[in-house]
Amino acid sequence: MHEVNFAVLGCGGIGRRTLEVSEDKEHLTPVAACDRHGVAVDHDGLDVDELLAATEGNIDSGPENRDVATDGGAESLSDSAAHQTPMGSEDGATASEGGSASGGVKQSGEDKGVVASEQAEPTEDPIEAIIDEHEAIDAVLIALPNFEHDFIPRVADRFADAGYSGVLVDVLKRSRVIDMLDDRSETFEEQGITFVCGAGATPGLLTGAAALAAQSYVEIEEVEIWWGVGLKSGYEDNRGTVREDIAHLPEYDIEDARGMSDEEIEAVIDDHDGVIEFEDMEHADDVLLERAGVCDAEDVTVGGILDVTSDEKPTTTTVRVTGTTFDGETGTNTFQLDDATSMEANVNGPALGYLKAGVRRNRAGEYGVFGPAELMPGF
Amino acid sequence: MHEVNFAVLGCGGIGRRTLEVSEDKEHLTPVAACDRHGVAVDHDGLDVDELLAATEGNIDSGPENRDVATDGGAESLSDSAAHQTPMGSEDGATASEGGSASGGVKQSGEDKGVVASEQAEPTEDPIEAIIDEHEAIDAVLIALPNFEHDFIPRVADRFADAGYSGVLVDVLKRSRVIDMLDDRSETFEEQGITFVCGAGATPGLLTGAAALAAQSYVEIEEVEIWWGVGLKSGYEDNRGTVREDIAHLPEYDIEDARGMSDEEIEAVIDDHDGVIEFEDMEHADDVLLERAGVCDAEDVTVGGILDVTSDEKPTTTTVRVTGTTFDGETGTNTFQLDDATSMEANVNGPALGYLKAGVRRNRAGEYGVFGPAELMPGF
Repeated sequence: MHEVNFAVLGCGGIGRRTLEVSEDKEHLTPVAACDRHGVAVDHDGLDVDELLAATEGNIDSGPENRDVATDGGAESLSDSAAHQTPMGSEDGATASEGGSASGGVKQSGEDKGVVASEQAEPTEDPIEAIIDEHEAIDAVLIALPNFEHDFIPRVADRFADAGYSGVLVDVLKRSRVIDMLDDRSETFEEQGITFVCGAGATPGLLTGAAALAAQSYVEIEEVEIWWGVGLKSGYEDNRGTVREDIAHLPEYDIEDARGMSDEEIEAVIDDHDGVIEFEDMEHADDVLLERAGVCDAEDVTVGGILDVTSDEKPTTTTVRVTGTTFDGETGTNTFQLDDATSMEANVNGPALGYLKAGVRRNRAGEYGVFGPAELMPGF
Repeated sequence: MHEVNFAVLGCGGIGRRTLEVSEDKEHLTPVAACDRHGVAVDHDGLDVDELLAATEGNIDSGPENRDVATDGGAESLSDSAAHQTPMGSEDGATASEGGSASGGVKQSGEDKGVVASEQAEPTEDPIEAIIDEHEAIDAVLIALPNFEHDFIPRVADRFADAGYSGVLVDVLKRSRVIDMLDDRSETFEEQGITFVCGAGATPGLLTGAAALAAQSYVEIEEVEIWWGVGLKSGYEDNRGTVREDIAHLPEYDIEDARGMSDEEIEAVIDDHDGVIEFEDMEHADDVLLERAGVCDAEDVTVGGILDVTSDEKPTTTTVRVTGTTFDGETGTNTFQLDDATSMEANVNGPALGYLKAGVRRNRAGEYGVFGPAELMPGF
């Protein structure tokens, strides 16, 4: 394909790993990256090794943001937490976004993070600094935590207002954010923006798998997305994410979970003996599969098991698609991720893959909001 | 997406079913279809119901072509045969291409097939009749048997020579045909043709699944594609396909298999007690996965089990992708097709999905030869 120049907003776990993985991808050049206090731009391509080395163990993280972000690009909110050092930083991904600091040394302050790189400059408004370069950027991966439900939609507004015509990608997974993006659909279309939402492990990888598995059928009966997470050693550092998961239990909602003390959260976990099963989570998978024409949203279920007593996944992440073939047979096609694959491993590749797919749509004149399953081959 | 007008060359199993399935697809309009003696064109969209009804049990098939075609878009050569009435007709798909006559009444002659439709006209050169309409056609599904290795490549030549700029799709699976298409790559690029090869169940659906499953890993160790086929009731009608499968046994090659009498074929089957296991088959899956950057061709194995004593699949069609994650773990992701899904069920959807993906590439200015895995979201 033709060359794709991309920028990364946020140099936490997702941002950093995406830069790293992009080095293995053809026709994909990172030309800009930022965190809270710094921005690096090089239209010939960033020196990713230098940038990553300079920020190793030196993430620009702010403890004030812990427990705030609530969206994720992981196999589940929980799963994202299972494999990482939490950061809760504006410049990086929080636990619940599936981010992971390569280092683990938490530091903060104006001289930390991207500014430590020789390629970077300090800035008061890093997002604006990227927007200033928009004419030379084909795609922007938004690897920022979605502090408020509308934080990432508002970032998109800024790009649109500045006259950006290109691709924006997020790795969120909460349905209501997609509704907010949909509200901006007309603006995106007028502006020539192709917004790809939920491009991480889930909805990304798993709804893509569902779209593929659905190909045997003319009528889909049910799509079941099921994840397993073991979170023993990472538990202490991932209370915020566990808190978000608790919001998915039938007895609680997001407001309840946010208002609970750490002790109250602990009590809920203890009540479940450390192993909590979630059913009918508010994941965007259902909406995105319906948008892609795979099935009705109501035929999609998302659930999983979080085990804080073990690092082993308590159950295997599985996508099951049941339907009826054109010749009247009913069957279930299955996609399973090996228990050994971490959430991060399942975010990086898909995010860049969907980014490239978004660029192709954009170049073909297709604008608006797209979910990962819609970017599968026309299925 | 923007509207896609497509034509189908061949109204046998694959052609007919594709027309049928296209009615459920948005933005996809069949505007032309032909078989050996007739062509139907309507730029506002064919009346598919009428066309299918008129040709029901009335396929324009020629017995002289039995056992000739050797490529397939099925889960395997064998699998394609497991679920169909063989036709061996120039206008339709042969057993080994995964075609299936909806009717099963074999008829032939100049008044049979597409000409029976009110929308159709008789023609001496149906392919030329389609080519005449090329300016109004975005994509052409070539659902013809590949009598000679270069038959479909030569069909592509005719379109290129006529100045066609658009998408051509086949559902073949033999590696050497892809080499021939590659030889034409420069012509396709000059002409603005995007050729999508192997867009059926395999390599199509299964290499697409492999490309998806590979997303957890930074390094792929092995891709194993494994199929199961039960062919008891369909056996008598599918000797040609079984013959082709025998060419994949280590003791034989294609020339041997073609030269063998029916009795000699029977003897081979009897030697195996009716259950033949195939290893390292000459499928294009390996080449196409390498092209897509998923892994080296030598790391791909394709095999399966054909059981002519039962209609049940003797083993489940499975794609296993083993690799190493960015964080150093080794795992195997798995995609399985339910035993209840027939080969045809696994050809129709993917073929149209890849056709639409091909149109997007074409509109984005990407020309040449593409395998299905290359059409996945930039993975």
